[in-house]
Amino acid sequence: MRVNAYAAPAAGQPLAPTTIERREVGPNDVLIAIEYAGICHSDIHTVNGDWGPQPFPVVPGHEIVGTVTEVGADVTTHRVGDRVGVGCMVNSCGQCPPCRGGDEQFCVNGTVFTYASEDRDGTHTQGGYSTHVVVDADFVLSVPENLDAAAAAPLLCAGITTYNPLRRWGAGPGKKVAVVGLGGLGHMAVKIAHAMGTEVTVLSQSLKKQEDGLRLGADHYYATSDPDTFSELAGRFDLIINTVSADIDVNAYLGLLTLDGAMVSVGAAPGPLAVNGFLLGARRILTGSMIGGIALTQEMLDFCGEHNIGADVEIISADQVNEAYERVLASDVRYRFVIDASTLA
Amino acid sequence: MRVNAYAAPAAGQPLAPTTIERREVGPNDVLIAIEYAGICHSDIHTVNGDWGPQPFPVVPGHEIVGTVTEVGADVTTHRVGDRVGVGCMVNSCGQCPPCRGGDEQFCVNGTVFTYASEDRDGTHTQGGYSTHVVVDADFVLSVPENLDAAAAAPLLCAGITTYNPLRRWGAGPGKKVAVVGLGGLGHMAVKIAHAMGTEVTVLSQSLKKQEDGLRLGADHYYATSDPDTFSELAGRFDLIINTVSADIDVNAYLGLLTLDGAMVSVGAAPGPLAVNGFLLGARRILTGSMIGGIALTQEMLDFCGEHNIGADVEIISADQVNEAYERVLASDVRYRFVIDASTLA
Repeated sequence: MRVNAYAAPAAGQPLAPTTIERREVGPNDVLIAIEYAGICHSDIHTVNGDWGPQPFPVVPGHEIVGTVTEVGADVTTHRVGDRVGVGCMVNSCGQCPPCRGGDEQFCVNGTVFTYASEDRDGTHTQGGYSTHVVVDADFVLSVPENLDAAAAAPLLCAGITTYNPLRRWGAGPGKKVAVVGLGGLGHMAVKIAHAMGTEVTVLSQSLKKQEDGLRLGADHYYATSDPDTFSELAGRFDLIINTVSADIDVNAYLGLLTLDGAMVSVGAAPGPLAVNGFLLGARRILTGSMIGGIALTQEMLDFCGEHNIGADVEIISADQVNEAYERVLASDVRYRFVIDASTLA
Repeated sequence: MRVNAYAAPAAGQPLAPTTIERREVGPNDVLIAIEYAGICHSDIHTVNGDWGPQPFPVVPGHEIVGTVTEVGADVTTHRVGDRVGVGCMVNSCGQCPPCRGGDEQFCVNGTVFTYASEDRDGTHTQGGYSTHVVVDADFVLSVPENLDAAAAAPLLCAGITTYNPLRRWGAGPGKKVAVVGLGGLGHMAVKIAHAMGTEVTVLSQSLKKQEDGLRLGADHYYATSDPDTFSELAGRFDLIINTVSADIDVNAYLGLLTLDGAMVSVGAAPGPLAVNGFLLGARRILTGSMIGGIALTQEMLDFCGEHNIGADVEIISADQVNEAYERVLASDVRYRFVIDASTLA
């Protein structure tokens, strides 16, 4: 089955329309007619070759929402007409300890990611900037019908990426959470943390987006360019979710943690973090997180359905994707671009 | 009350015999006739001025075991003749959140440490290289009578320093713990972790102390100078206790952690740790720990009593302390020097 898509032909080259082959629907497969695909910063890193050589042409996109149009004979969890989602993964071994523990993204035999990843049959996966995708039913999520489809798409990566550490490190009533950076990830972290009932503070470079931050659910908003921020908030937070992928002064942020507080990076900083060991001595925790397993992703979608949480999106047509990439790199989006897949038809 | 002691007269100067004043026994005080005082690496850092200016003359020593010879009118927890211990702290505010949470070492109003610390009355505390000490009863621990007094002294710092992260991060049956470095702290970590029923691996620069390590309770012993160690043990450990205070390649060790595994530094490295953020992304935890609160220290002493755990010690007379410092710096002790306080009389 050949379908329309937008692909990067080589590292650093603009994306262009193309067609790609989708496999036949196997017994455990689901064919999805894509409605929307979000643009994640990691799409840009990948096609730019920032993360090493890629199997070009690459069709990015791992924030996918669509409708089931066909299911394999063995599929019992999804039916034709269902609204579903696909995130960053489309397969894993299912047998190793992380897979058995619900952490398919850490499959020791190699997670199959949604694009630019070697699939079980030796081909390379192609992502959601496309009209259709065929995915193993175990990696297809149910998307609550009350959510707007375009706003739901970014939940599949930005949503689970922030929900996971908030859940794991105990965000909730009585806890103080700081979100560093108010971009695609940060704005989801604020919405989700607020819905969890926790006190949320945004730490952003400037106060430029303060009004937005408070509207999204933040209780407090501080500029990190103001050194007083770090003295005023010293020892304040139980949890810091760092969504910034640039290098930051990690020790300044560690100083904002309370005893046994944790700072979790969900963005990937390019350089090493120069950590002051004495700060860690006061039982401060530095760790990271990477998306989340399938069961937790479903839990996140259900949570967002209950609380009516979607991303703030700007819907674009497929031919605007290169321009959108420039604007993402310039932090000029509030807060996620989503491609309307009908413009690919 | 003037008592004999050994003090450093100035930064970097050899310790020499002197006399110091101990306060009158107040209503909540305990007077202790010191039997043994361990030599901790941090004694050396302090008197060398590595950690900043100190109120010289300084009498070091925060691994103290002795016998109660007098108690204040309000003391109900200790009696004359009891064997007791004093660790790194002798007071704290008792009111702040860390104190109320049993973490007096993080008192926000200032923990009073056992030596070179400003006491509540404005004087500076003097430590255990001395014949007697007067300590608030709340900071006096009960030392199980079945333990050898000299071997018990290092439990008050090296013991609690390693017991705390083992306990907090879940060492026990079914868990794999690595201990980095087999010195004063490392040998206690091995003994305690083994008694907790966990599988213990020592990671030491060479195999020089392998026989010792296995005798102390390690199940496995690897040389970190052998690069194969890091490939063979990749992803193996639930918990790494890093007792080395020199700079190490933290990323190599992070690679030995399993998903959600934690690396806890209990030694203080001089330089910043250059941490690779991608390693943390696989939910690896980097943190630290600093001694432990009074209740946990008592729990540790009781645990060591039940399991008959003391340090491996070399008993010296007070006039050997400068030589002992040289040997500690050369890692030439198995595994802790303890001063026989009767040689100060």
